[in-house]
Amino acid sequence: MFETIRWEGDRDGHAVLIDQTVLPDRYEEIDIETPAAMIDAIRRLSVRGAPAIGVAAAYGVCLATRGIESKDGVEGALREAFPMIRDARPTAVNLHHMVDRMKAAYEAHAGDEPLAIRDRLLDEARGIQSEDHALCVKIGESGAGLIKDGARVLTHCNAGALATAGQGTALSVFYAAKNAGRKFEVFADETRPLLQGSRLTSWELQRAEIPVTVICDNAAGHFFGKGEIDLVVTGADRVAANGDAANKIGTYSVACLAHAHGVPFYIAAPSTTFDFEVPNGDSIPIEERAPEEVWQIAANEPPAEGIRFRNPAFDVTPAKLIAGWITEKGILQPPFDQIR
Amino acid sequence: MFETIRWEGDRDGHAVLIDQTVLPDRYEEIDIETPAAMIDAIRRLSVRGAPAIGVAAAYGVCLATRGIESKDGVEGALREAFPMIRDARPTAVNLHHMVDRMKAAYEAHAGDEPLAIRDRLLDEARGIQSEDHALCVKIGESGAGLIKDGARVLTHCNAGALATAGQGTALSVFYAAKNAGRKFEVFADETRPLLQGSRLTSWELQRAEIPVTVICDNAAGHFFGKGEIDLVVTGADRVAANGDAANKIGTYSVACLAHAHGVPFYIAAPSTTFDFEVPNGDSIPIEERAPEEVWQIAANEPPAEGIRFRNPAFDVTPAKLIAGWITEKGILQPPFDQIR
Repeated sequence: MFETIRWEGDRDGHAVLIDQTVLPDRYEEIDIETPAAMIDAIRRLSVRGAPAIGVAAAYGVCLATRGIESKDGVEGALREAFPMIRDARPTAVNLHHMVDRMKAAYEAHAGDEPLAIRDRLLDEARGIQSEDHALCVKIGESGAGLIKDGARVLTHCNAGALATAGQGTALSVFYAAKNAGRKFEVFADETRPLLQGSRLTSWELQRAEIPVTVICDNAAGHFFGKGEIDLVVTGADRVAANGDAANKIGTYSVACLAHAHGVPFYIAAPSTTFDFEVPNGDSIPIEERAPEEVWQIAANEPPAEGIRFRNPAFDVTPAKLIAGWITEKGILQPPFDQIR
Repeated sequence: MFETIRWEGDRDGHAVLIDQTVLPDRYEEIDIETPAAMIDAIRRLSVRGAPAIGVAAAYGVCLATRGIESKDGVEGALREAFPMIRDARPTAVNLHHMVDRMKAAYEAHAGDEPLAIRDRLLDEARGIQSEDHALCVKIGESGAGLIKDGARVLTHCNAGALATAGQGTALSVFYAAKNAGRKFEVFADETRPLLQGSRLTSWELQRAEIPVTVICDNAAGHFFGKGEIDLVVTGADRVAANGDAANKIGTYSVACLAHAHGVPFYIAAPSTTFDFEVPNGDSIPIEERAPEEVWQIAANEPPAEGIRFRNPAFDVTPAKLIAGWITEKGILQPPFDQIR
């Protein structure tokens, strides 16, 4: 499989990302050498997906101290970088968790020599990456049994290898089912406005030789109504303590449709995506992105006065619409004691 | 208001359409001088919307006899044109109804002089246009009372002046409510793949000074969930005898969401859109359009082998999800005795 994000070199090295904004037309890698460049890549969605953003954030912290050899320099750079990176995007909680983890690693070693601190931070970031890789494998194992031979499974957005440092969350379930010899097919919502389903999920599944049919988001109801969808599995950007799950805009619509048609709807996410500080979905901040992402496919000129474009990037699916939460510890139910 | 379609000149004249494929960036009219050009315009969606397609079809019949002065010539041209125009698109029933009406007008005058026949056909087509205009006004009057002060009304696709020879169906309800002094706002689904909501509904409502917010189709659930939508009104391309309504892909998803959130969902359509020959929605043919309409915003290259794109252009909303059918004879319920 490809590597969505990696670190090249030692503590003076840099991060390399697949630029997901130009797939599927071009496969391009970009070198990221500063925290500002990493934050920009996160905001532009060159790297996206809650787990992948968490790994990107950890490497962003390493980049903050790149080339710095004094203790004060390291401390100052990190003091600036931690909140800046933590605020890159608001909804996915992995970003917060991983910045906090890097901060804790720093604080535990703040008395060390500056170069030793930097080595320790790079170790921590690499550890986050390899742990995410392992979590993905286990999520796939947890969920593979849900996919029966002949199943037609809908997914929304991209919760695949491109969204993680491993083989994905929702898509890891598909990869594990495929490895177990199951024959099935996937419906991928195109996922407006940024088309992660049409551009990324189809690209990934085609490489894995899993048959995939891309549909406009608004066509999902039609296929549910025709009885052509048996199961839904999506990722999540943050799961609240009660199980409410924030995920890419449109996930809630899909969950409502699944419920109306008696089709089970599952979330696949590692424990790092759960936020037990947040009691329910009402408290999850929803990023609203630029209106250009919506109107620019329909017109060359900005909309006339009186026309507003709204672009919430996520929505919240209430726990009552979710059949199960596929995690590295199995398919769980609230209150999620196994991962608290 | 603008004229979506008109005839210029006498029986040797031609039709003029607003080219709806280039709005909102450019307002362009195109001259249509042959039935083949009219069929092409209908298939490319330069003219779209069930009532407007009906009017376009009627003028298409007139174009078939353009310049022909012999009786045999007129008969031969019409014999070829009727089925060709009738088959331009499969789902909207107005196309069938209006071709059949033109055919009946011809058959009632088949013994007349050829030029008299052609005058008669042009009269019939002009009659269809002005009747549609009147139907639109009455639909608006029928439905205006549904829109209360402060209402937030969702619509899907474009069921406006651009979809008719008058002021629209669903949007006529909005125009009538506005004329009655009601203050309200409209959510317009962008309506993938051809973006009739983002491009056309927003353009129309902005000209009419009705506040409009365009959202991605998949964001509708989010706004329903937040309690920000009070009412849904859409058009229809064909209503079956039991009230099942075919309309632009995505309408069924919206109807399911409205139902799940206790929001009333109305169809607005003239009696010419009802097809009492068809018992229910299962018998309505659903056009599947080219996959390019879906993938071309996501990629420059065609999809790799193993990736399929599906593009059903319509879906069917079952009568049980529809609160009322707004017609020129009031807000009706099945079995629609008032318009049978």
